Amino acid sequence: MMCRLGDVIVVAPDGPRSASSCSISPLTTITVRLLKQQQGLTVYQCSGTPTDCIKLALDGLLERKPDLVVSGINHGDNASVSIHYSGTVGAAYEACMKNVPAIAYSLKTKSLQCNFRPYEDTVMQTARYALENGLPQDVLLNVNFPEVEELKGTKICRVGRGRWMKEMMQVGEGAYRLTGYFQNLEPDAEDTDYWALEHGFASVTPLQLDMTAYTMLGELKIES
Amino acid sequence: MMCRLGDVIVVAPDGPRSASSCSISPLTTITVRLLKQQQGLTVYQCSGTPTDCIKLALDGLLERKPDLVVSGINHGDNASVSIHYSGTVGAAYEACMKNVPAIAYSLKTKSLQCNFRPYEDTVMQTARYALENGLPQDVLLNVNFPEVEELKGTKICRVGRGRWMKEMMQVGEGAYRLTGYFQNLEPDAEDTDYWALEHGFASVTPLQLDMTAYTMLGELKIES
Repeated sequence: MMCRLGDVIVVAPDGPRSASSCSISPLTTITVRLLKQQQGLTVYQCSGTPTDCIKLALDGLLERKPDLVVSGINHGDNASVSIHYSGTVGAAYEACMKNVPAIAYSLKTKSLQCNFRPYEDTVMQTARYALENGLPQDVLLNVNFPEVEELKGTKICRVGRGRWMKEMMQVGEGAYRLTGYFQNLEPDAEDTDYWALEHGFASVTPLQLDMTAYTMLGELKIES
Repeated sequence: MMCRLGDVIVVAPDGPRSASSCSISPLTTITVRLLKQQQGLTVYQCSGTPTDCIKLALDGLLERKPDLVVSGINHGDNASVSIHYSGTVGAAYEACMKNVPAIAYSLKTKSLQCNFRPYEDTVMQTARYALENGLPQDVLLNVNFPEVEELKGTKICRVGRGRWMKEMMQVGEGAYRLTGYFQNLEPDAEDTDYWALEHGFASVTPLQLDMTAYTMLGELKIES
């Protein structure tokens, strides 16, 4: 879809990187391979994490700062607390740190065959918005889609409270696999990303780099 | 140090996990091995990331919810933007998501031999604070130490703005290594974590789970 908006350079991991968060690879050599180069579209594959891909693009491969970085559409939503684990969002965070407008896109689905058609308008609309208006310093956009044939609309949302439960399944002596289910702790909060997803809307959530809990700054009594 | 405060259960990765962020290992089997069990101290090693370790501890190994989770002391600071890459902070985030008071500790140093003696008082003070008072819901503490013989004191700080520069070093045809240097974008801001570190103070920064950029919620004009 992005080719409609300008020249596109893809720098993508060479395989699944589920739940990479903002992790990077300081201990290994990161390799990159040019897969395709044609008018308006260049594609690289990279051995690193999603965040490595952005660092490599911005600091190794691109000749100039891009106008926009998009990440996704990820298979699986990255709303609520799942944002913290997401490599899709991690890549967008990295671009944001480098002052490039950035958007992460994810689709809440369990099926392997995805039809992206219902989300095209929202993708184009959000990407165009960021290109035309820019984004405030240290802010990125996190967009999530529900699996529907037609979106009910797009909602600007805050991050909803939630948590993953029963996450470790023992599969042998001293051997475990990650599993579990997501519990929405605010199922009735209509202003949250997860509510939007559960009610057929795309959610657009502005996220910030600064994680300071400002309300607690005055309360902590540890200073010396 | 933590053994002075109560029974300690260590669940640690089996090797370096630099820059793991909040990443987890959904695609592999996570193995765990009991290394030590004595009065007041149990030690496990785990094949996963720091965040996997916390999930495993809370959902697989421990009989009850712990009173406190501490992570670190990490070799290298986790202040400013480096918080996003940190597995030390990632582990504390995970505990926070599960409603356990959590503190991440890191030391700004380049030397391999570290003397933790100068930081004992602050570690004990912050850990006792969290045990006695708890922490607000969805808030954790991020503590950083400068490498000094004696701390000038402890400061409650916000996260300072900064960025990593020149991060990719080409080491061969299509081969790169992460490198670079940190640039403090607010060198004169005395209320930031990085300022504290550069001036001989320990920094204590409350961080929050919620990454919503609230100031932008009303401004985004994408809704439909």
